[in-house]
Amino acid sequence: MDQHAMDRYIKSMIKEAGHRIRNSFLSDISVDTKAHANDLVTNVDKEVEKFFIQNIRKDFPGHRVFGEEGFGDTIEELSGTVWMLDPIDGTMNFVHQRRNFAISLGIYEDGVGKMGYIYDVVNDDLYHAIAGGGAYYNDERLQPLIETDISESIIGMNAMWATPNRHVEHEATIRLVHDARGMRSYGSAALELAYLASGRIDAYISMRLSPWDIAGGLVMAKEVGAVASNFSGAAANLLKSDTFVAANPSIHGKLLQDYIKPKQA
Amino acid sequence: MDQHAMDRYIKSMIKEAGHRIRNSFLSDISVDTKAHANDLVTNVDKEVEKFFIQNIRKDFPGHRVFGEEGFGDTIEELSGTVWMLDPIDGTMNFVHQRRNFAISLGIYEDGVGKMGYIYDVVNDDLYHAIAGGGAYYNDERLQPLIETDISESIIGMNAMWATPNRHVEHEATIRLVHDARGMRSYGSAALELAYLASGRIDAYISMRLSPWDIAGGLVMAKEVGAVASNFSGAAANLLKSDTFVAANPSIHGKLLQDYIKPKQA
Repeated sequence: MDQHAMDRYIKSMIKEAGHRIRNSFLSDISVDTKAHANDLVTNVDKEVEKFFIQNIRKDFPGHRVFGEEGFGDTIEELSGTVWMLDPIDGTMNFVHQRRNFAISLGIYEDGVGKMGYIYDVVNDDLYHAIAGGGAYYNDERLQPLIETDISESIIGMNAMWATPNRHVEHEATIRLVHDARGMRSYGSAALELAYLASGRIDAYISMRLSPWDIAGGLVMAKEVGAVASNFSGAAANLLKSDTFVAANPSIHGKLLQDYIKPKQA
Repeated sequence: MDQHAMDRYIKSMIKEAGHRIRNSFLSDISVDTKAHANDLVTNVDKEVEKFFIQNIRKDFPGHRVFGEEGFGDTIEELSGTVWMLDPIDGTMNFVHQRRNFAISLGIYEDGVGKMGYIYDVVNDDLYHAIAGGGAYYNDERLQPLIETDISESIIGMNAMWATPNRHVEHEATIRLVHDARGMRSYGSAALELAYLASGRIDAYISMRLSPWDIAGGLVMAKEVGAVASNFSGAAANLLKSDTFVAANPSIHGKLLQDYIKPKQA
C-alpha cells in the first residue's frame, strides 16, 4: 500500500474508532486503575486498542504494534514498521469530562517517524502529518512556528512540577511559571502536542511520557519546526517512559538551560 | 419584555457577537496591554462590548451595563437591572490560540442573579441558566452535581498559586495539587465555570476575578448546586475584584478549610 492509500486507510480507521468511542457514552463505562489511584483505564480504551490491532494485523501483517493497553507486540527495538498507539490519550478527561482526550497514532520505519495522527474525538478535529509533507489541522496546513521568547510564551505543564517533586528542581520550574506569559494544563499529551504544532501553546513539558503518548505528535511537531527531547537534550525515547519537552525552536534550548533542572536519577 | 422573550433576545445577540468575533480572525487583530504585560486587550474586545451596549441601551433603556472594557456604566451598587458583561473572557487565549475564550453575561436584579450565559465562540457551544429554571449546555439540561471528594476531584487553577505568591500560603495549595486527582488550567474563568456546572471539573479557584468574569457563571453554578464564595466564605463580590472559589458542594467547605489559606491583606 503506498503512503497516500495508507493515509486514507488510517484516517478512515481513526474516524471509525472515534465513532465507537462517542457511542460508548451511551452505555456504562467501567473504570479501573493501573499503576496508582489516578492512573485510569476503561473498557473503552481496551476495546478501541483491540479494534486497531485487529485491523492492522489483518491488513499489514508484517507490521508491529506498540499499544498502551498491551494488546500489541512487545517492542524492544524499532526495526521495520511499528505503529505506536494510544487508543485514548487523556483517560482521566475521558472519564470525568467526556472530552479533551484523543486517539494518538504514530507510524515509524526503522525508528524514523513517517506519519502522525492525533484525533480530538469529541470535537471531530483530526491533526495529521506526513514526514516531509507537512502537518495539518483537518484540511488546513499548519504553518512553521514563529519565533517567540519565554515572556510571550504559553507553556503546557501540570502544576505538580512547580511543587516539590522527585523529578525536577521545583525552584527552577517556579521561575518558568513566573517568567512565561501563561501556563495551561489540558491533561492529554497528544492534544498538547497538537496544540504546540498549531502554535496555540509554545511548549509542552512532562516528567514521564510513554512512546505511544508522543509518537504521533513528534511527527507533527517536526513538520512545523518544533524541537523535542528528553530533559537531557537527547532524542525523545521511543522504547520506554522518559522525561519530555517539546517546544517552539526559539525557546527549547532556553527551557533546558534555565528552567528544567532534572534531579539525579 | 418577559423572561422567555428576553432569553431569546439575548441568545440571538450573543450568537451575532460570536459571529463578529469569528469574522475578526479574517483581519488583523490589534493587541494592547492593560494593567501589566500579560493583561491583554484587543480591538475586538472593545468592539464587541460596544455592540452589546448599543443594543442593550436601545432595547432596555432602564437597565445598566457593567462591562470589562469600561464602555458601560459606573456601577457602585446593584439596584435595578444590571447586565454584567465580559465580551471576551480569556483574551490571552483569543490572541494566542483563537479558541478557548467565551462571551460571559450575567443579568442581575437588585443584586440577585436571574440569567447567565457563557458562549464558547469557536465551538459554538452556548451554556445558559435561568434562576429557578435550570442550567443548560446547548439544549441539554445540566444535572445536579454528584457528591465527590478531593481525591477524586479535578481542580481548575493556575499553577501560579502553587508557587510563592502574595495571595495565599502556597504550601496549602501544594497539598491540594498532591491530594486532588488532577489539576487543569484553561485560562478562561467563564469557561471553567461552565465546566464546573457541567461536572467536568469539580472546583475553580482564582486569586482575583472581576464581577463580569463570574456573573454569568454564578447563575449557572447555583442551578446545579455548586457553591461559590470568596476565600473568606462570603458571597462572591459583584462590585469589585476579589478572590473566588466555586466548587461542587461536597468539597467547597473542605477547600476553604484545608487548602486555601489567604494571607493577611
